[in-house]
Amino acid sequence: MPGQTNQRIDGKRLWDLLMSMAEIGATPKGGVRRLTLTEVDKRGRDRFRAECEAAGLTVRVDAIGNMFARRPGRDPNRLPVLFGSHLDSQPSGGKFDGALGVLGGLEVMRSLNDLGIVTEAPVELVNWTDEEGSRFGHSLMGSGVWSGIYDLDKAYGLTDTEGVTVQTALDGIGYNGPEPATAFPADAYFELHIEQGPILEREVKQIGIVTGAQAQVWYDAVATGQDSHAGTTPPSARKDALVCAARVVDLVDRMMRARGEDGRGTVGQLHVLPNSRNVIPGEVRFSVEFRHPDEAEVDRLDAQFPREAGFIARDCGVALELTKLFRIPAQPFDPACVDLVRQGAAKLGYSAREIVSGAGHDAVYVARHVPTAMIFTPCKDGLSHNEAESIQPEEAEAGCQVLFEAVLARANRTLP
Amino acid sequence: MPGQTNQRIDGKRLWDLLMSMAEIGATPKGGVRRLTLTEVDKRGRDRFRAECEAAGLTVRVDAIGNMFARRPGRDPNRLPVLFGSHLDSQPSGGKFDGALGVLGGLEVMRSLNDLGIVTEAPVELVNWTDEEGSRFGHSLMGSGVWSGIYDLDKAYGLTDTEGVTVQTALDGIGYNGPEPATAFPADAYFELHIEQGPILEREVKQIGIVTGAQAQVWYDAVATGQDSHAGTTPPSARKDALVCAARVVDLVDRMMRARGEDGRGTVGQLHVLPNSRNVIPGEVRFSVEFRHPDEAEVDRLDAQFPREAGFIARDCGVALELTKLFRIPAQPFDPACVDLVRQGAAKLGYSAREIVSGAGHDAVYVARHVPTAMIFTPCKDGLSHNEAESIQPEEAEAGCQVLFEAVLARANRTLP
Repeated sequence: MPGQTNQRIDGKRLWDLLMSMAEIGATPKGGVRRLTLTEVDKRGRDRFRAECEAAGLTVRVDAIGNMFARRPGRDPNRLPVLFGSHLDSQPSGGKFDGALGVLGGLEVMRSLNDLGIVTEAPVELVNWTDEEGSRFGHSLMGSGVWSGIYDLDKAYGLTDTEGVTVQTALDGIGYNGPEPATAFPADAYFELHIEQGPILEREVKQIGIVTGAQAQVWYDAVATGQDSHAGTTPPSARKDALVCAARVVDLVDRMMRARGEDGRGTVGQLHVLPNSRNVIPGEVRFSVEFRHPDEAEVDRLDAQFPREAGFIARDCGVALELTKLFRIPAQPFDPACVDLVRQGAAKLGYSAREIVSGAGHDAVYVARHVPTAMIFTPCKDGLSHNEAESIQPEEAEAGCQVLFEAVLARANRTLP
Repeated sequence: MPGQTNQRIDGKRLWDLLMSMAEIGATPKGGVRRLTLTEVDKRGRDRFRAECEAAGLTVRVDAIGNMFARRPGRDPNRLPVLFGSHLDSQPSGGKFDGALGVLGGLEVMRSLNDLGIVTEAPVELVNWTDEEGSRFGHSLMGSGVWSGIYDLDKAYGLTDTEGVTVQTALDGIGYNGPEPATAFPADAYFELHIEQGPILEREVKQIGIVTGAQAQVWYDAVATGQDSHAGTTPPSARKDALVCAARVVDLVDRMMRARGEDGRGTVGQLHVLPNSRNVIPGEVRFSVEFRHPDEAEVDRLDAQFPREAGFIARDCGVALELTKLFRIPAQPFDPACVDLVRQGAAKLGYSAREIVSGAGHDAVYVARHVPTAMIFTPCKDGLSHNEAESIQPEEAEAGCQVLFEAVLARANRTLP
């Protein structure tokens, strides 16, 4: 049931633009392959720039290729309200991961035009460069450089599998822009994105009010036992690295479940050596990661896991080496911005729930400098990074409408 | 302390021959690469044939390349006593796996000559073709064809990775012999072999009195869950194929240990899909095998394992498909032949223990037609199928001396 507003975005126009953009890099199976800084990405960017300019926006490009499309406000001294996402995709990606936030943002701009609204603050739509990290191995590159987390020169020097650097690729498609690739003052940042998980769909919610991003800790693990003949080595003489690794996999799952529905614990990668049918495995290499919205909970996991995994290894007669790859702190979003998302969903009568982002997003880096919030919409079966990624037009419309409400409210707020 | 016999084999001559044979296909790391039916194998066979003929033996070759070297007995009507093993090796094999049994057998023949012994029954030394299965993917080929377990024409048609068939390879090295490759009547078969396991070394025993071979059951397993984002998928929505597989790996180990030191249960091979750090694994493919000397115990394992693994899979929300690859019955050796090994070791004052073979050996197939026993000797750290495979000269000598005693006793026995 539509809520109480007569300021509505155009859901059909948004959907048509999503489908039209999805033709750029379309794959036979209905997905998108729009790898960052390729000729296909250039066509997507050119199309985006043309649509922005047709909507009267002023487009700037910075030195890492981030694109900013500004619509002036009534008060030129107010800080802009930013919103956007990314147009690059995974190698076998879907139509909506990233594109929904950028094109939904463009629909907000068009609707502001159609409704003849002049906001108090300027509003500015962003297309961040290389969110996916699929080509140069470094995700969140554009927002990371902008936020000062990644060094621009280091980012320039990254190469793809054919040895092409980021700088060469940027120059090649003409998106090494004149603006400095550093954070500028802004009043807020909003990002609309598909959930990339199953929670909203399962609970039949239209809107996820994203309150922040999880804390994470990632490890590399190597279990070293002794490979030996499976038929001749009795139980007491075995040092089976796979039995050790298996018990650690089980430990990770149990430690996750002990934290309830907010816990995440995963072994995604595991390699067995020598990986021969009748040889007891002598070495197993595997990844371990934990995530939780509560910073302190990840600290506890980080203290408990190495200790308990060590007990398992000792029981197995196996040496277990754990290397901590990184520890990402929890990133809570700005309560006032989150509240604007909550109010927008409520005003429109959309079913909604609070949710913590499990995936990385540009918003997580931007949030270090700018008050930030995100809006999630459901996606079919929780699938993304997949050509089968799918959402419904009314889901895109609902997310865009909430983005519109939040941006408008923030841009017109009474400054404290 | 040497036991009571003045009929001694020549330990130094045996060791020199082992070292000399190990030069044929020697690897830089001190191992041997003598893949079946290659030019290197031909050089090993030619050398073996020449040594046999120099010792006065009559060498016959059958249609699968098995070589038989006969020394006549006093009574030409008595069935021959066979003994031997194989001269082919793993790609990165050791000096002793197989070679000890063949060259130890040749030392028995030479010692019979030196001691001027005429046995009642003929004695016959065998070099079985392709025990290892490394080149054509089918282990125990020569003894399998001879025993009627493998069809000769099917064996001929097997190809190596370059498309060369067994028949072509046999013809190529001139070892496609005129004798039929079928079992002929024999009075006994003895095989001397390194243990390929750690038990004798650990218990400081010189001789393993092999009472038979384990029963085995082998499975292929496929766990199918749902791959999804490690950060966004909550515990209740996970169908983690690796957590399921890990718990089955643990089950296999626990089921093995519940059977004490005679049990064997191993997952040697395991592949994870998509095997990406932040993706919950959607599919895991792995091998499972159980072995036990007691036929009934393997029947129980074969009944219990699929049931308990099924419970685990159900708990994980994962589909588990088990395919039974094969079920090999236990192969007890002939009590009278085993007793001759026991008596030989006792007479010589060697420390000994009964042991069940966990590995496959030509003797296991031969035992289907001929009363059979095996003699094990220790090997360093239980290692084999490895260039680091190592034994001591006195260990080889002890095994060969026991073989001599057993062969002589059997060949001179009073027929019932």
